[in-house]
Amino acid sequence: MKAFNDLADFSIEEIKALVQLANRLDAHPEPEALKGKVLSLLFLSPSLRTLASFQAAMTRLGGGSFVISPDMSIHGLETRPGIVMDGTAAEHIREAVPVIASYGDALGIRAFAERKSLENDLAEVEFHAMTDLIETPYINMESAMNHPCQSLADWKTMDDLGVPDNGGKFVLSWAYHPMPLPLAVPAATLHMAAQRGMDVTVLRPEGFELPDALMQKALAAAALSGGSVTETADRKDAMQDAHVIYAKSWSSTRHYGDKIADKSLRENHLDWCVDEPWFENAQADCRFMHCLPVRRGVVVADEILDGPRSVVIPEARNRMLAQMAVLHQMLGGSS
Amino acid sequence: MKAFNDLADFSIEEIKALVQLANRLDAHPEPEALKGKVLSLLFLSPSLRTLASFQAAMTRLGGGSFVISPDMSIHGLETRPGIVMDGTAAEHIREAVPVIASYGDALGIRAFAERKSLENDLAEVEFHAMTDLIETPYINMESAMNHPCQSLADWKTMDDLGVPDNGGKFVLSWAYHPMPLPLAVPAATLHMAAQRGMDVTVLRPEGFELPDALMQKALAAAALSGGSVTETADRKDAMQDAHVIYAKSWSSTRHYGDKIADKSLRENHLDWCVDEPWFENAQADCRFMHCLPVRRGVVVADEILDGPRSVVIPEARNRMLAQMAVLHQMLGGSS
Amino acid sequence: MKAFNDLADFSIEEIKALVQLANRLDAHPEPEALKGKVLSLLFLSPSLRTLASFQAAMTRLGGGSFVISPDMSIHGLETRPGIVMDGTAAEHIREAVPVIASYGDALGIRAFAERKSLENDLAEVEFHAMTDLIETPYINMESAMNHPCQSLADWKTMDDLGVPDNGGKFVLSWAYHPMPLPLAVPAATLHMAAQRGMDVTVLRPEGFELPDALMQKALAAAALSGGSVTETADRKDAMQDAHVIYAKSWSSTRHYGDKIADKSLRENHLDWCVDEPWFENAQADCRFMHCLPVRRGVVVADEILDGPRSVVIPEARNRMLAQMAVLHQMLGGSS
Repeated sequence: MKAFNDLADFSIEEIKALVQLANRLDAHPEPEALKGKVLSLLFLSPSLRTLASFQAAMTRLGGGSFVISPDMSIHGLETRPGIVMDGTAAEHIREAVPVIASYGDALGIRAFAERKSLENDLAEVEFHAMTDLIETPYINMESAMNHPCQSLADWKTMDDLGVPDNGGKFVLSWAYHPMPLPLAVPAATLHMAAQRGMDVTVLRPEGFELPDALMQKALAAAALSGGSVTETADRKDAMQDAHVIYAKSWSSTRHYGDKIADKSLRENHLDWCVDEPWFENAQADCRFMHCLPVRRGVVVADEILDGPRSVVIPEARNRMLAQMAVLHQMLGGSS
Repeated sequence: MKAFNDLADFSIEEIKALVQLANRLDAHPEPEALKGKVLSLLFLSPSLRTLASFQAAMTRLGGGSFVISPDMSIHGLETRPGIVMDGTAAEHIREAVPVIASYGDALGIRAFAERKSLENDLAEVEFHAMTDLIETPYINMESAMNHPCQSLADWKTMDDLGVPDNGGKFVLSWAYHPMPLPLAVPAATLHMAAQRGMDVTVLRPEGFELPDALMQKALAAAALSGGSVTETADRKDAMQDAHVIYAKSWSSTRHYGDKIADKSLRENHLDWCVDEPWFENAQADCRFMHCLPVRRGVVVADEILDGPRSVVIPEARNRMLAQMAVLHQMLGGSS
Repeated sequence: MKAFNDLADFSIEEIKALVQLANRLDAHPEPEALKGKVLSLLFLSPSLRTLASFQAAMTRLGGGSFVISPDMSIHGLETRPGIVMDGTAAEHIREAVPVIASYGDALGIRAFAERKSLENDLAEVEFHAMTDLIETPYINMESAMNHPCQSLADWKTMDDLGVPDNGGKFVLSWAYHPMPLPLAVPAATLHMAAQRGMDVTVLRPEGFELPDALMQKALAAAALSGGSVTETADRKDAMQDAHVIYAKSWSSTRHYGDKIADKSLRENHLDWCVDEPWFENAQADCRFMHCLPVRRGVVVADEILDGPRSVVIPEARNRMLAQMAVLHQMLGGSS
């Protein structure tokens, strides 16, 4: 595996094999599989789960990792191409990325969206500006419009819970949040659920439609898997017979990169906080999923998060197991 | 071992077995004992020795660890229960702690006292609010009123030096420091020396008595071990025939959490800086112990710290060895 | 090996053996060589390559490491001797360094020059104040006037490329940079190239001569190895038949520690940015080397850095391999 960048690059069978490998590594640890192997981890954006779970994953497989982040004691990193570096930053990513990659057998990169241009972010311009610099296998640890590690973990989580693939109803719901968050998780989640063959509904207020390119990509995945993709602003319609509600806030596509216009739009939807009444016409055991971190009392009520519907903790643990499967395949652990 | 939270939870025999295991692991390394095992380390308060020694301990036993701290590139952590999270913090410890725990085979937590309420801190309200969230075995890396890793290392340090348990005289002395420091180390040290069967004197100026609950707990330990516990403000009385002086500054119990009242009290005691004249009626080879970090020329004179009485460096190294013993037992290294 | 502090402490044969060991470990990994061994890493100055490559090196050899840096969550470190510590810093290096060393089998230390006194910095007063406190083997990860890990990597890089030792022409060139940088890399590089037996020319504008002590040390090395050392401000003279140009900015020796006087001098030399015209009378395949980080468009033109002359990425990767050889010898990996 040369890259783990997008679940869309893998067939359903390949994804199922990764989930199976994750299950096997959970049941039967392989603490020698990646002996002496190194994973380089470059965080240009903040992290908790990803930071912790990748380090833990490498240790469990007998290898190790190191973390580089501008928050640590390094000389600031410049990202703009062709610039005369007479300012603060002492190093350009054109050197930093290949060097960091050269110390590892694979490189994980996290870099959130710039949110200056929707087109650039959809094309993953910034992320590919980095991965184009290296030959080393790499892992997308969250880019402008993708988060494949989260999606593989979410797929496994639904398998663990017995949520049906074909015939399973998956609601991806926008939720209120004080800040305009990136589209990476909703983009990846929408595609993952469609690719898994589920009937996916995107539930969002007017103005928070996902970009058309993401909807089209998901529709194509659904066509292959036997799933479906629809969108609505009607909560009751969306939740009808739902097996899963996956909550996530995201910024307005209409006002992409415009914080003020986005804010005036989102402030009308303070009531988009997932709570028990949302579930009245859902499946009785309808689950609540979220990638975390989540704002309590804002995105979701404490009652839901602390109650039996929530699977956010095992979902987060599956990050580690899913990544162990990816690393095992990528770094040649004998399987 | 499900938790290493308080030396008081262990019998004298169990503690001796841990010290013996620490000695064995020092003499006979076991670099495969914890192969593929992960220790999660959560630091909500600053650290040097604990941060370094736990990472080194896991490596020496063949496992690994990862560190999460709010100083690193994570989304701020909220600790207040039931709050609507519309402020700065993007994640609540109710999610963060179980998630971090889920990546490890054990979890170490450091969280200093809030110092708003003595009662809450004595009850370890904040610390247990975290440990109550998890099933994973955990280690107290310093809480409001405990520091069992330090105490196990200190016990071993006295064994290494041949300091008698029954009949050994241990002086826990307050010292001047410009800031009102937590009670964790004095609380843990007082109990440890009493549990070891020593004759313990708490030497402190008026106003710096330790909380009664801590004195009572130590008296109970002394009753079981054949030791004794007294307190005095008279330096000469305290130091008579002492085998060990353990210096540590701490805040005034009377003015707990009140920095200004505490300061006006402590400023009268600038002369509580341990120096050679303190030792005139002590045992000739009376040792100086301190948990570090220590302020030179403030808590203790350079002459003592750099002289033959000081055992602070081997004492600090024993942190690693003591923790290796705890980890070995907790994580099932075959013994 | 008790210390890896200066290439000058090693014979040419010993250095060649280290380079050979680095090559062997690259071709034939030894993921069990340093099983259970710990490298303590103390960074008092910022780092990217050193931070990453030492961690990667230990993992590849089956051991591990931990990092301590004042940027992390530790109590500030005091370095001044004999001081009464009633200010901000809560810990003195006199305790911190031996404690950190005591957790590892070797200690790496990085501490840039104070740049208050040239004499003190040339004598490595600050660095030895730390290493004098410990018995543990140590590695200089860049001190006031040395960077032996960089130099060993550079030696290997030239071997990899087939650059001749005797008869090879090596130009160490000053370059413009907005800030007065330390002398560690030029000092180490000058000596390394002379020790390798090369004909070394230091190319620098008036006012940026290297300290006489460094020139004398390099001349002595050249006398032993059959190399030579000269200096000039004439670019054309210097570059004649050059096999390698090693660019690096450094501060003015004349105005050592005086940022304002240094700045007014260096601002006259904005044109010292290595570009293709520099190479017109050099060997056709003359290489560009730099220790990184490098400021694009300031120290060197993008065209050079992105073109076939540049070897900065493999040079940086050799940091890891060179350090693996040092660690393997120092920590007793069977060879």
